[in-house]
Amino acid sequence: MAYNLLKEKRGIIFGALNEQSIAWKVAERAVEEGAQIVLTNMAVSIRLGSIGELAKRCNAPIIEADATSVEDLERLVDESMAHFGGKIDFVLHSVGMSPNVRKGRAYEDLNYDFLSKTLDVSAVSFHKLLHTLFVKDALREWGSVVALTYLAAQRSVCGYSDMADAKALLESVARNFGERYGRHRNVRVNTVSQSPTATTAGMGVAGMQGMLAYADAMSPLGNASAEDCADYVVTLFSDLTRKVTMQNLYHDGGFSSVALSERVYDTFLKGLE
Amino acid sequence: MAYNLLKEKRGIIFGALNEQSIAWKVAERAVEEGAQIVLTNMAVSIRLGSIGELAKRCNAPIIEADATSVEDLERLVDESMAHFGGKIDFVLHSVGMSPNVRKGRAYEDLNYDFLSKTLDVSAVSFHKLLHTLFVKDALREWGSVVALTYLAAQRSVCGYSDMADAKALLESVARNFGERYGRHRNVRVNTVSQSPTATTAGMGVAGMQGMLAYADAMSPLGNASAEDCADYVVTLFSDLTRKVTMQNLYHDGGFSSVALSERVYDTFLKGLE
Amino acid sequence: MAYNLLKEKRGIIFGALNEQSIAWKVAERAVEEGAQIVLTNMAVSIRLGSIGELAKRCNAPIIEADATSVEDLERLVDESMAHFGGKIDFVLHSVGMSPNVRKGRAYEDLNYDFLSKTLDVSAVSFHKLLHTLFVKDALREWGSVVALTYLAAQRSVCGYSDMADAKALLESVARNFGERYGRHRNVRVNTVSQSPTATTAGMGVAGMQGMLAYADAMSPLGNASAEDCADYVVTLFSDLTRKVTMQNLYHDGGFSSVALSERVYDTFLKGLE
Amino acid sequence: MAYNLLKEKRGIIFGALNEQSIAWKVAERAVEEGAQIVLTNMAVSIRLGSIGELAKRCNAPIIEADATSVEDLERLVDESMAHFGGKIDFVLHSVGMSPNVRKGRAYEDLNYDFLSKTLDVSAVSFHKLLHTLFVKDALREWGSVVALTYLAAQRSVCGYSDMADAKALLESVARNFGERYGRHRNVRVNTVSQSPTATTAGMGVAGMQGMLAYADAMSPLGNASAEDCADYVVTLFSDLTRKVTMQNLYHDGGFSSVALSERVYDTFLKGLE
Repeated sequence: MAYNLLKEKRGIIFGALNEQSIAWKVAERAVEEGAQIVLTNMAVSIRLGSIGELAKRCNAPIIEADATSVEDLERLVDESMAHFGGKIDFVLHSVGMSPNVRKGRAYEDLNYDFLSKTLDVSAVSFHKLLHTLFVKDALREWGSVVALTYLAAQRSVCGYSDMADAKALLESVARNFGERYGRHRNVRVNTVSQSPTATTAGMGVAGMQGMLAYADAMSPLGNASAEDCADYVVTLFSDLTRKVTMQNLYHDGGFSSVALSERVYDTFLKGLE
Repeated sequence: MAYNLLKEKRGIIFGALNEQSIAWKVAERAVEEGAQIVLTNMAVSIRLGSIGELAKRCNAPIIEADATSVEDLERLVDESMAHFGGKIDFVLHSVGMSPNVRKGRAYEDLNYDFLSKTLDVSAVSFHKLLHTLFVKDALREWGSVVALTYLAAQRSVCGYSDMADAKALLESVARNFGERYGRHRNVRVNTVSQSPTATTAGMGVAGMQGMLAYADAMSPLGNASAEDCADYVVTLFSDLTRKVTMQNLYHDGGFSSVALSERVYDTFLKGLE
Repeated sequence: MAYNLLKEKRGIIFGALNEQSIAWKVAERAVEEGAQIVLTNMAVSIRLGSIGELAKRCNAPIIEADATSVEDLERLVDESMAHFGGKIDFVLHSVGMSPNVRKGRAYEDLNYDFLSKTLDVSAVSFHKLLHTLFVKDALREWGSVVALTYLAAQRSVCGYSDMADAKALLESVARNFGERYGRHRNVRVNTVSQSPTATTAGMGVAGMQGMLAYADAMSPLGNASAEDCADYVVTLFSDLTRKVTMQNLYHDGGFSSVALSERVYDTFLKGLE
Repeated sequence: MAYNLLKEKRGIIFGALNEQSIAWKVAERAVEEGAQIVLTNMAVSIRLGSIGELAKRCNAPIIEADATSVEDLERLVDESMAHFGGKIDFVLHSVGMSPNVRKGRAYEDLNYDFLSKTLDVSAVSFHKLLHTLFVKDALREWGSVVALTYLAAQRSVCGYSDMADAKALLESVARNFGERYGRHRNVRVNTVSQSPTATTAGMGVAGMQGMLAYADAMSPLGNASAEDCADYVVTLFSDLTRKVTMQNLYHDGGFSSVALSERVYDTFLKGLE
């Protein structure tokens, strides 16, 4: 069902790799809700994934950009504004990657060049993006920026390694740039802390299947899906949430507010036997 | 602008006293978004306020109920379901009152009968409401319940006295009943932590004018108004936020995430001179 | 090992029932650290437990008091000051009881008279205590008050029923009275959020054995024991923590900062099979 | 007053520049409490400050080390263990520096090489330190590691620029490494979130004098001093806090739990006139 929530709005969506991607679902929902969008990703992700299909479906250009390169981001913003013929209303940052996780390095044994890469791709890229938008005054007043994050930023999750640190840094950037962007331009910046999700990136974390089952059993409403997340993000891009900023918003079926559920308790007891 | 976000949905709105009330604005916006509603308040508030006008505008019945009386709540739920011809989709709890605040009792010198009243009206009433809805299975699957709260539940605010404790208790009830309602019936329960607002209730707090100025200067987007709040609550009642539950959601222009802003800093320094 | 951390200090300890009680351990450690103490509890707890033995060991008077009675608290404070020949340096509030938990009432089906009792005994009693101390100016400057609490105040724990709400209210009282007591008298007020502990009260919660195993498996350092807690509380009563106030301090082996540990993960997977 | 709290304990103290430094005070208090210590800092800080004086007073060697160099940290740990003739019990990390702050770059206009430096010096250095200690198994069981941080990690503070992000990252490292160090070796890792303090580093932040006045007026107990902090850190190094881990502990006179105090309110109103 669509409501025209994003009618006449224009946005940039980072990070749609394939149909499993949360960014993919957000792109589809944004267009359903009346928005025009630009899709962007790194060259390698464009090649490996199926973003071309999404672009067709959404009638959207794909602008290649490395989110760690200010130069690329500048070009992306310039070309997007040229495409739209004006300013931008919303942006989704769904960018994260850890070479340490990929190579299976334990958190207590990180490779520091990898860590640097993890932070740069997954968190500093968000500052660069906001900085570029800010300098170019590219966002319309009451525009909305959302970055995707995960609860490991607050509480330790086995297997999540240095992505936990990257997400903590990402959320800090959202708060701190949110203060400046709010004060100077009435733009809001928030993070959405999503349930573990069976995306290509998510499934790269060791033990993801078990973690999905655990999170589902702990969450009163079960895990939030990528589709659910897209619905929620659409509300954050809309004009109905204009005074929400600098927040980390849990979209997780309640997981973050539960210390022990009956289902986990029962399964844990069985496992003890 | 309306989006039909609440098309075919039916809800109960507590606490609309007069045009300044947040509940009043939520009622109006819910109806604009396609919902049918029932209005409810205590007898004395119905008499003193102007809810009749709102009822006319919203084509809604007024069902008198004391939120501290399980009997009244049962009747309210029964009559609402009869009116709607079926189950309920959303409920707004905007109920709070502290005799200690009214009588100007300092927090360190509470009257304990008054405190009991404060807790009963402002927080336990929410448990009674959820309990009544739960027992009667009155909420549709994926229904949504929202209660209004304030940051004093987390951080001390001078002048707010025992309402701070009542709001902390209210938020706890939302979390704990949210877990049960989510698990058993896929219903979500959240609280919205709103900027200080110039409602009749708000203006009863000593020094409210100064507090509004302070909060506005601290918040990058300025204070959220009652109208802003209504917009936000509408998204929480909609089908787009189904997996958000047990959360305390700050709707405050960023206030909760700022420790010191430039505007407050500058004014504070001037005041020191 | 003892350090004379509480040399020349005098304190009141609520809630020592028997050797399992955290309050019992705190009393013993406080005396080992050089303090003089007064023990207090309700008549029924004095009769059922073995506090007499502790009193002998600690060379401490037992002053009977119902923590919900301001009159009793006034007498307790007066008699304690008379006993000490002066003001008091520290107080431990370890008081909690829920008739709903005792009778096995589910959270969604509370008895409201019971709830009122739960809140009154477990949380409002703390306000009454602080109020009595404040009015009588019974605490020395830089005195320290600690109340024991539990993580259920922040995150839902199955089986904990309305004690979760009571603890949320208790922590709010600590924050709010802490602000006043700090500002007016340089006294600090904190809560210690302790691991689930195998005390008589703790074991009254349904499924406590399983919860202890779960919490232990989730906590990197394992559950904190009553003895560990006593050590920690002693530091909070000492002069070394004078600027810590209005805090909820987790003493839980790390549980509160973990979303998923390897041990819980492995056991949960086994349980799924 | 001293208690022998750290009798027979050995520790490493980072970051003592001069008498204003928190690390300086911690070093003095640790030795007063019976510990042996090693002092460490970067070459330039050793040259510019007066650490030699402290070393004499504490009978401690100075081992030069750049906290961003794993090689230096390895040598530091090796030489410290050689000096002590065995394992280490506690470590203080008090290391932070932002070229962006030094050069007065606004947060919305960071130099990204500087940001990289800020993160590396102020946060990644803590991971490197913990990693080096872990690999060498240099900490005794129940050892304690503390890093100093600041509330800007949670809430925006004007003027604090990218140090806010660095502190958020630092706290994340403490949580995540704390989980591993706790689980594998029963070592605890915490951060202390200290009031703004008039150290050489602190005074480098623009508008620090005003911020000190503001924080003092907001905090019920006033700002915590460097001496207060040293007292508190000593308790965290002692055997009395063995089950506290992965926590961010506010040592701030209550600032973090206040949204608006009477003193700030009154001064703000004056400033508005």
